[in-house]
Amino acid sequence: MNELLIKAEQLQQAAKTLALLSTEEKNEALTRIAEALIKQKEWILQENEKDVALGKEQGLSPALIDRLQLTNERIEQIVDGVRQVADLPDPIGEIVEEWTRPNGLRIQTIRVPLGVIGMVYEARPNVTVDAASLCLKTGNAVLLRGSSSALHSNKALVHVMKEALRDSAIPADAIQLLEDTSREAAQQMFRLNGYLDVLIPRGGAGLIRSVIENATVPVLETGVGNCHIFIDESAQKQMAIDIVLNAKLQRPSVCNAVETVLIHQNWPYISELVETLHARGVELRGDSQLASSYSFIQQAAETDWSTEYLAPILAVKLVQNVKEAVDHINRYGTKHSEAIISEQNDNVRFFFQAIDAAVLYHNASTRFTDGEQFGYGAEIGISTQKLHARGPMGLRAITTTKSLVYGTGQIRS
Amino acid sequence: MNELLIKAEQLQQAAKTLALLSTEEKNEALTRIAEALIKQKEWILQENEKDVALGKEQGLSPALIDRLQLTNERIEQIVDGVRQVADLPDPIGEIVEEWTRPNGLRIQTIRVPLGVIGMVYEARPNVTVDAASLCLKTGNAVLLRGSSSALHSNKALVHVMKEALRDSAIPADAIQLLEDTSREAAQQMFRLNGYLDVLIPRGGAGLIRSVIENATVPVLETGVGNCHIFIDESAQKQMAIDIVLNAKLQRPSVCNAVETVLIHQNWPYISELVETLHARGVELRGDSQLASSYSFIQQAAETDWSTEYLAPILAVKLVQNVKEAVDHINRYGTKHSEAIISEQNDNVRFFFQAIDAAVLYHNASTRFTDGEQFGYGAEIGISTQKLHARGPMGLRAITTTKSLVYGTGQIRS
Repeated sequence: MNELLIKAEQLQQAAKTLALLSTEEKNEALTRIAEALIKQKEWILQENEKDVALGKEQGLSPALIDRLQLTNERIEQIVDGVRQVADLPDPIGEIVEEWTRPNGLRIQTIRVPLGVIGMVYEARPNVTVDAASLCLKTGNAVLLRGSSSALHSNKALVHVMKEALRDSAIPADAIQLLEDTSREAAQQMFRLNGYLDVLIPRGGAGLIRSVIENATVPVLETGVGNCHIFIDESAQKQMAIDIVLNAKLQRPSVCNAVETVLIHQNWPYISELVETLHARGVELRGDSQLASSYSFIQQAAETDWSTEYLAPILAVKLVQNVKEAVDHINRYGTKHSEAIISEQNDNVRFFFQAIDAAVLYHNASTRFTDGEQFGYGAEIGISTQKLHARGPMGLRAITTTKSLVYGTGQIRS
Repeated sequence: MNELLIKAEQLQQAAKTLALLSTEEKNEALTRIAEALIKQKEWILQENEKDVALGKEQGLSPALIDRLQLTNERIEQIVDGVRQVADLPDPIGEIVEEWTRPNGLRIQTIRVPLGVIGMVYEARPNVTVDAASLCLKTGNAVLLRGSSSALHSNKALVHVMKEALRDSAIPADAIQLLEDTSREAAQQMFRLNGYLDVLIPRGGAGLIRSVIENATVPVLETGVGNCHIFIDESAQKQMAIDIVLNAKLQRPSVCNAVETVLIHQNWPYISELVETLHARGVELRGDSQLASSYSFIQQAAETDWSTEYLAPILAVKLVQNVKEAVDHINRYGTKHSEAIISEQNDNVRFFFQAIDAAVLYHNASTRFTDGEQFGYGAEIGISTQKLHARGPMGLRAITTTKSLVYGTGQIRS
């Protein structure tokens, strides 16, 4: 048996124990993990330094090095995250539904762990701890498959977490790092039905596509957000400008940032908006009318409408009405987050009905598509698929249900 | 573009219209379908006869011919099914959750159609109509991929349904039959991400495995049930015998029939149970102790514990306690339906906690794992996976949600 299969067996066994633990036992284990991470901070930083040095040697971009790098402060943030997860309410054991059938059978559907979760992610070592704490809190065992560039950091973090579990009710086997970061091992992991209950890829579009293409284990797809804001004829000037600036610039590199703004051609404040964006350093790519009206707006290519820039670049387009905006979004959008800024309720209603997306906003920034902003306390990712979970995924997204049926001898006729 | 892509495009367009229809419009269309099926009954039977004749020519087994065959009565049952679906409450538009965040954002999660559903199934032509009516009721368009042996029947049924839709609010394009029943077309269908939102395979283990192995579109797995009944020391004699007989014999060919009975070694009525089963024609395969005690019990092989017989054959095994029963079930079970017959609450609690399965029963037959028996009115299948839906799937299982966020200018800080 190779490393993967050995660890998969251990995870399966651990998951059985973990599923039976009380909330207190799980929280106590999380607290031990938080304490151990603080205690072993120096060693973790040393191990992380090895990854950073190797990364620089191999010519990783400064942005990638930055994602890889741990610091005192970042470790403290990670530890804070663990403590917050410990404080969250435990969804396991919740009664989801309960009813009685005419034949007297009482059916109770309760929330239970998924079992074993496979996380597949890229450079950021913080995902190692974030994912592990969310999985343990919900009674799931977790197989972590990070990237080779973060291997020293991930090994150190997992080592510290497993050691911390030795004095807790959670078996140390409940967290496993796949140290074989080869493509072959990943492919085998993606097809480990019977051991893994779900795969959650977190990272760039390439990673997510590779998991979906190759997996036979069910996947919780997270990912691409080509998000739009439609500014209706009736939109308030300052509200529209504030929301667009926020959605584009507050953190341009994330999936819920806006990538295209559609503007009703009769909205009176088009100049103010585009000039403000330009002044704030946003590169604008517009339809031919906008490009010919403003020297600082480049003519957009067809590909601009479907590009997730993840940068201070924005596509802008005039539309004749809400219908044209909706058609554009349904054609180019990725069903993530779409906003309308409008004072006309009919248009809002139409926008909300006719657009197929995880989250729709009226008069608010698309940046709120986030587990914490939704009030879930933590986030395992943002689902862009329609099965199981859609939009921000909190703890409940990594649970399933089981139905308990109480009878008095009923048989089927 | 080949047949599949042309139909996929049409389905996507149809799904957009369908998502906006009212419950009344959808029900009216279903009623038209029911009426048209009755009206065209003779022609449907003629077309079905072609499949049956071909099947006989090709030497299909009598069981397969029986599944393929339509009769006056079977068409009436199918039509009854359509009318029942029309009568069910419409889950679309239901408010699933609603809450307000401290910043004043009001979030409402509502139930919406999945979009386009791909059904992959085997000989039974009734699935063509059942699946179509469930999909249309929930505002989904549907791509039907039946088997080549039922092609004449499926073409006739789909033709009649599409014609019936022409005078309704549902676009006729919302139902499409993939007439190319080649392996290549199926493979392409399984990877039609962007067009299909989910694949639902219905049929034998081979079909389901093939879909899971090859699909990149998310799959709702249905399937194999190696179900157990554990008879505890305290189980009431008659209740235990009635439940085992019902779970084994009421319909042996289905996934929720029992395949192994585990008996507490101190239960006083072991002889009565096995003798009754034998008298009722059940072939028994037992552990060495049972096989040596009863001449009519064959010695079970290791494979018997993991076999879904789907026939009047039953594996039987003595266990020392509920713990041994649970370990056996967690080792050999398929996480479908598992029952305990017992008068001891502690054992029931332990059984319910420690077994990982979609449905657990206390003092009732496993045969109740069924959409109609659960009170869902209709069933699209029984999910044996943990994501999205687990256990019997009714109309809600073929819906998703979208979050509507109402703001007053909120931006993220």
